[in-house]
Amino acid sequence: MNEHTSAAAPPALLLVDAPTVAERLVQPGFHAGDPAAPQLRVTDLGASRGDGVFETIGVVAGQALQLEAHLARLAHSAAVLDLPAPRTEVWRAAVLAAIGAAGGGDLAVKAVLTRGVEGTDRCTGWVLATAAPDTDRAREHGVRVVTLDRGYAADVAVTSPWLLQGAKYTSYAVNMAALREARRRGADDAIFISSDDYVLEGPTASVVLRAGDTLITPATHQGILAGTTQAEVFACAAARGLRTEARLVPVAELHRAEQVWLCSSVRLCAPVRSLDGRELTVDRELTDALLEHLAGGGARAGR
Amino acid sequence: MNEHTSAAAPPALLLVDAPTVAERLVQPGFHAGDPAAPQLRVTDLGASRGDGVFETIGVVAGQALQLEAHLARLAHSAAVLDLPAPRTEVWRAAVLAAIGAAGGGDLAVKAVLTRGVEGTDRCTGWVLATAAPDTDRAREHGVRVVTLDRGYAADVAVTSPWLLQGAKYTSYAVNMAALREARRRGADDAIFISSDDYVLEGPTASVVLRAGDTLITPATHQGILAGTTQAEVFACAAARGLRTEARLVPVAELHRAEQVWLCSSVRLCAPVRSLDGRELTVDRELTDALLEHLAGGGARAGR
Repeated sequence: MNEHTSAAAPPALLLVDAPTVAERLVQPGFHAGDPAAPQLRVTDLGASRGDGVFETIGVVAGQALQLEAHLARLAHSAAVLDLPAPRTEVWRAAVLAAIGAAGGGDLAVKAVLTRGVEGTDRCTGWVLATAAPDTDRAREHGVRVVTLDRGYAADVAVTSPWLLQGAKYTSYAVNMAALREARRRGADDAIFISSDDYVLEGPTASVVLRAGDTLITPATHQGILAGTTQAEVFACAAARGLRTEARLVPVAELHRAEQVWLCSSVRLCAPVRSLDGRELTVDRELTDALLEHLAGGGARAGR
Repeated sequence: MNEHTSAAAPPALLLVDAPTVAERLVQPGFHAGDPAAPQLRVTDLGASRGDGVFETIGVVAGQALQLEAHLARLAHSAAVLDLPAPRTEVWRAAVLAAIGAAGGGDLAVKAVLTRGVEGTDRCTGWVLATAAPDTDRAREHGVRVVTLDRGYAADVAVTSPWLLQGAKYTSYAVNMAALREARRRGADDAIFISSDDYVLEGPTASVVLRAGDTLITPATHQGILAGTTQAEVFACAAARGLRTEARLVPVAELHRAEQVWLCSSVRLCAPVRSLDGRELTVDRELTDALLEHLAGGGARAGR
């Protein structure tokens, strides 16, 4: 269709044989699989119960972005779901091998760990590297966003840990439904609001807003994901002399904000150009500086 | 190990080739598969996003219980998730064929419909019949239950349809986490409470309580599942001269109730013997009458 897709390498799949400390490790702990062939049983709890955790890692010019932060979050998510501890060194090696097998370039690498086939007490793991989707339009022209009620109060992660808030797990049907609802409303993406009117996160992104010389993101004790890309946005902003704050953000503050970004691993940093129909300012210079920083692997490049 | 497992037939799997109106139907629309072999790609949105719907159908002595109610609820869940309409006649035939292939007897039949492999616009479907788990203990001795906050207000299904409440979908990680939390607290099962203190449902069951000569269940407009088994419990109760009510149930009423049951497709009707540590009365005669009615296929047997 265009340069992006015609240049794309075929997907590369690695099946992780020893995804956690519960499975015996025979080096390297993973092997290549055919992504076009069936690989999972119907009794895998990942397929039948959405019972797994995952990470999506952005790759720019063959370089995995914030890989260690993603591996740490995968381990955190597994702990929240009472899964055995992931073998981080195996996952790291599998991600790097998948990038190599996919020929480098710009990729999205998805790492998934499920509770495994029912009754086996063995987890299932895989790493899939695919060509990065074309995100130029979102980065350059911005995204139209609507706010949607997430139904939970901002303190739900503290009061009800069984709701698994703050973990990145594969039961994502609500996130996908929120994106469909956004499209029904003529928008590209959504920002979730708590039932007590605090800003949370997007279905697949962290929220950053600007007030004067300060960048603000909703605090993670509300049961939202600690954003790997948002952390790099803050590092870049601090290096440019901006202040940064992670705290409760009342929804009224979002509706007053002049600039808002959605931050995620592959799209990196998309400026919001409209919010619930209100036009926003897009600071092209700052956005481009953030994108350049993020695409270079940020402050943690090479780690 | 015991009579239940030694008599169990191996699982029977049918892969549904034409699960919805979006796929071309070549009769009969399904074919046999090996449940011990991989059947799903890692890019199936059911596996990567928990993006699918399902039903579990109880089978007693080769007879599927409330099959039409389950097929209707599968279609309802698919509509809530914006999936194409399931081909009900194909699913009905596949369920009956799976029961035959598993040799009849007492089974649990799971029917799963996912959004399919990413980018293909074709849904994935399967029907898996397995030997019913041993539920005698729960039915005879009752279950210990704790209440857990579901985090949502009772009106969330009305205010926020994108939260998919009232659909039975495969993003079940929170339900599984709630069962683990119950076990951590020394209980067998859980009952979810809304954030505004109304009784909702169990992670895998409907709730019925008794006050005098009335059986009461929480109303489904709160975004809880319409229970196929609960409906049969009410039919049986009405035939015995009891009154039945579906309405908002304040949690205080649950804590005062003398008798409570958890109703589900395979365990059928398990009396609650303790609730948050408080001992409850188990009406053996009524419970046995309900179990006998439910195991016979209830008022709808043969439909």
